[in-house]
Parts: sequence; C-alpha cells; structure tokens
Amino acid sequence: MPADSPVFSRIAIVGLGLIGGSIAFAARRAWPSTHVVAIDREAVLREALARRAIDAAGTDLSAVRDADLVVLAAPVRQNLSLLHQVAAHVSASAVLTDVGGTKRAIMDAAARLPAGTPFIGGHPLGGGARGGFEFATASLFSRRPWILTPPAGGGPPATAGRPAAIGAAVDRLSAFVTGLGAQPAIMAAADHDRLMALISHLPQLAVTALMDVVGSVATSGGLRLAGQGLIDTTRLASSPAGVWRDICATNADEIARALDLLIERLSDLRSDLQRAEIVDAMFQQAAQWRAELMKGRD
Amino acid sequence: MPADSPVFSRIAIVGLGLIGGSIAFAARRAWPSTHVVAIDREAVLREALARRAIDAAGTDLSAVRDADLVVLAAPVRQNLSLLHQVAAHVSASAVLTDVGGTKRAIMDAAARLPAGTPFIGGHPLGGGARGGFEFATASLFSRRPWILTPPAGGGPPATAGRPAAIGAAVDRLSAFVTGLGAQPAIMAAADHDRLMALISHLPQLAVTALMDVVGSVATSGGLRLAGQGLIDTTRLASSPAGVWRDICATNADEIARALDLLIERLSDLRSDLQRAEIVDAMFQQAAQWRAELMKGRD
Repeated sequence: MPADSPVFSRIAIVGLGLIGGSIAFAARRAWPSTHVVAIDREAVLREALARRAIDAAGTDLSAVRDADLVVLAAPVRQNLSLLHQVAAHVSASAVLTDVGGTKRAIMDAAARLPAGTPFIGGHPLGGGARGGFEFATASLFSRRPWILTPPAGGGPPATAGRPAAIGAAVDRLSAFVTGLGAQPAIMAAADHDRLMALISHLPQLAVTALMDVVGSVATSGGLRLAGQGLIDTTRLASSPAGVWRDICATNADEIARALDLLIERLSDLRSDLQRAEIVDAMFQQAAQWRAELMKGRD
Repeated sequence: MPADSPVFSRIAIVGLGLIGGSIAFAARRAWPSTHVVAIDREAVLREALARRAIDAAGTDLSAVRDADLVVLAAPVRQNLSLLHQVAAHVSASAVLTDVGGTKRAIMDAAARLPAGTPFIGGHPLGGGARGGFEFATASLFSRRPWILTPPAGGGPPATAGRPAAIGAAVDRLSAFVTGLGAQPAIMAAADHDRLMALISHLPQLAVTALMDVVGSVATSGGLRLAGQGLIDTTRLASSPAGVWRDICATNADEIARALDLLIERLSDLRSDLQRAEIVDAMFQQAAQWRAELMKGRD
C-alpha cells in the first residue's frame, strides 16, 4: 500500500489525551487527506482544532457514525463503559480498536458486542510520564512497538479458523500503525497482560511505592540529600493516578503475581545482606539484564 | 581562608577510583600547589601520573607518611582493613578521613585507633553509576553534599566536651571539601547510615532486585518490548557489585529496616489493587514526594 493512500479515510478518536492526540497528529502527517473527528471535552476539542490536529469536533458519540476506524483512547475503564455505546453507532464496515494498557478486560467486553463489529485491541508502548493533549506529538509512536490483540481465534494469519473480517481488520490496523511510525506486534490479550505486568506495571508500582516510603520516612530534609540515583529511579513516580488506578483494577491478578516475585526477591535479599556472594550474584545478574534491556538502543 | 592557600599541603589518597581520582583532580584545580600522592595498582597510578592527577605514586602504605591529609578511598571493607595499617604510618599532625558509603563500621574501627590520630568519617554524595579512575573528574563534587561524621562527642561546634583536635580537624575538612566544590554537612554516623539506607541503599537494592526479577521472567524477548519507564527506572542496575556488597554488609540492620518498609508497602498494595481510592492515594502521595525531591533542582 503506497504511503499516500490512506489505510482509513475517516478516523474517529474518542478521548483526545496524549495518545489520542498523537494518533491524530501522526495520521494527518502520514495521510494528509484523512479526515479526523474527535470526541472529548469542549476545551480540548477547541485546542485540537486550533492546532489542526483534527478536522471536526464531535459533540456526542454519534459522531463516530461515518468513520471507518474508531479508536477508543480514554482511560481503560472509561473505554470499557463506552464500548457498547460506541459500537451501536459504528458503521458495519468500520474497524474498532482501543489504546488501553490492559487488554483482557476490553477483549472480554468486545466479545459481547453484536456480531459483525470487528474489535481489535491495541496498545502503543512507550509514551511519557506526562499525559494530556498538550504533550501530544506526531512522533510519539516512532519506532515504538504497538501491540495488537485480535479476538481469540483471530491470531496471526497462519492460525486456522481465523474469521476473514478479523484477519482483514488486523492487516489494516497493522498497516495503519506502521504508517504512524510504530512497529506492530500481534499477541494474545492474556500474553499481553502477563508481559505488561512485568515490564511496565511492576516497575511503575515498585517506584511509586518506593517514592512514597522514602519520602514519608526521610521527609523533605532527607530528600534534599538524595543523589541522582534516587532522582532517575523515581521519575515514574509522577505518573498520573487516573491511568494506573484502571490498569491495577483490570490486571490485578497478573500484577499481584509480579508483585509476589519482587516481594520474594526483596525478602530473600533481606536475609542475605551479609552474604557477599549472594549480593554479588544478584548485582551481576541485574547488570546483565540491564545490558540486555539496553541492547540496540542508544 | 583564601582560595589560593591550601587547607592541606600534602594529600595522600589510598585507592584511586572514581572518588579518589576526582578528589585528586578537584584538589589540584582548587590549590595548584598542593602535593598529591596516591596508592593503588601500578597501571592506575601510571594513568593518573600521565593525566597529571597526582604528583607521586606510592608503592606501599608508608607513602602516607608526609601527608597532612590521608583519604581512604578504597571500597568500604578494604578501608576497614587498611585503617590500622595506614594509621601506623600517619604523622601526628595529619587528619585521616574516608569516603565510604556507610559510616558506623569505619567510625567503630577508628575508635580503636591509638589516641591522637583524628579520624573524621566522610561521604561525598552523588557520583555516578560507573566507577573507576577513568570516569574521575574535578567537577564530581560540584554543589553536592559531602557528609562528615566526627567521632561521638566531636559533633557540631556547640557540642560540649568536643575535643579540640577533632573540632579543628572537622573545620579543616569542611574547608577542604568546600574547596572541592561540595557542601559539607555534619552528621552522626548512625544518622548517616539510617538516612542512606532510605535514600540511597533501598533505591539501589529495589532497582537491582526489580531488574533481576523482570529480566529473568520476561527474558530478552520481553525486554525488547519494554519502554522508557523501565529504562529510566533501572539505570542503577548496572552499579558495580563490589561497592554494594560492602555497603550491604556494613549497614545490614538499617537496610533490613528500610526493605521491611518497602515490602510492607508492596504487600499492602497487592491486597488493594482493586481499590481505586487506595491506589489513587499512593500515586498522589508519591507524586508529592517526587515534587519535593525535585524542588530546587533543574
């Protein structure tokens, strides 16, 4: 598909925050002829129109009616409650997706939609600690993974029994997110949630708990003496509560499993502080995984 | 004291790593007439002479003989085992200090030195994740705190019963580290170790354990999908094991207490993942402490 032929000609974005706004900017950069309508609070829509992120401001959910791609880009639990209302307005030929940080809850809800509305879960990775349309940028997804979770039975093309409509929707969405600069990766929702609990949710919660504990015991006077180590480590501690409240609620089982692993590791370490060879081994393993994490990055 | 009149005219540095090397560079920048001798492996000393960090290379501990300031800058437990040997060579008028990350162990050892050798513990905060003389720089201490821990009874000037030699040594060391660009702060060794367990040792160990757990479960394939959050959070995971082995061993009780606080917080969170108001409260408190941490910094 040539870069100048839009994958979707009319896009509706429900929720114009960091991700929704960045999709608008990136889609218009990739395909200038694409028409973008967004639904959000009036002040946000006014700013988005002024910054030419969108073509039209939707006043209610019926504004998704003419779109061939509808993106739910509100916080996770808001997407869950919007899904059925939005699906009622969506045209039969449209593809429906979301950008939430957990995938089983929305896929379960989508499985209860009337037959014929293809819903493919989506999760663009990366982003920043700061949310909101004011930080939206066309380059947010550049070279970052964008996970797509088809409904069960609608996995990678080789999977037998994959319904044709789902397959076509996955292909179009893959082409779309590639056009936004991202690298699509297809994964089952359960695998997504298990992996994210480890590489995203656990680090966020560990750092939030750490900052809370250190701050409340060391207080302001102690924090003044903290070095760059604590500063780098706790950057995520300023992440917005609203996003994480929903992620915790909709991935609680996998997050609890990941927390158990960390708690167990810290408890073991607590008993082994005087055993040099054990402390050494943990630092060496951690340094190796850190090197692995940084492989191929700047 | 004018900047061009050296606080110490002959400095001996035992261990020329990141901190020892940076002291050499910073002292020579502040007071070009200061004579610096260092004791370390031959290859390091050769490089230090070539980079004009030092004036002379000591072949054994007797090289500290003529110094009026002796700095122990090896890893913590090496400093502990060197202390008495070094003290045997030190002149009666010299001041003895160290730069280790824990302070009770070395202060306890120093209390058993022959009377008359003033030992003032020291700990320059900050530094980087990467150790070794090759990263040494004159600006390492610039505007960073440098904690000084006098022996018990030798606290701040107002403390009754503070021996005059200790008081004078603290004053000279304060002037010295100020000349290196640092901000001296006087503190009891026990207070230092308790505070560092929270603001330095706990973050380091939490991040090391986190990287180890996440890496070993997610493995290389999972780490490839990790975002900037995990990357920033785990920068400290590449810290050298050698330094931390010693810190864990010599501050085990306070570190255990700090680990307990984090483990308890994570365990509570594990039970409360579905309770939005509790997750919210933790994120809000953490964000406030993070803002407090960043106050007055760039």
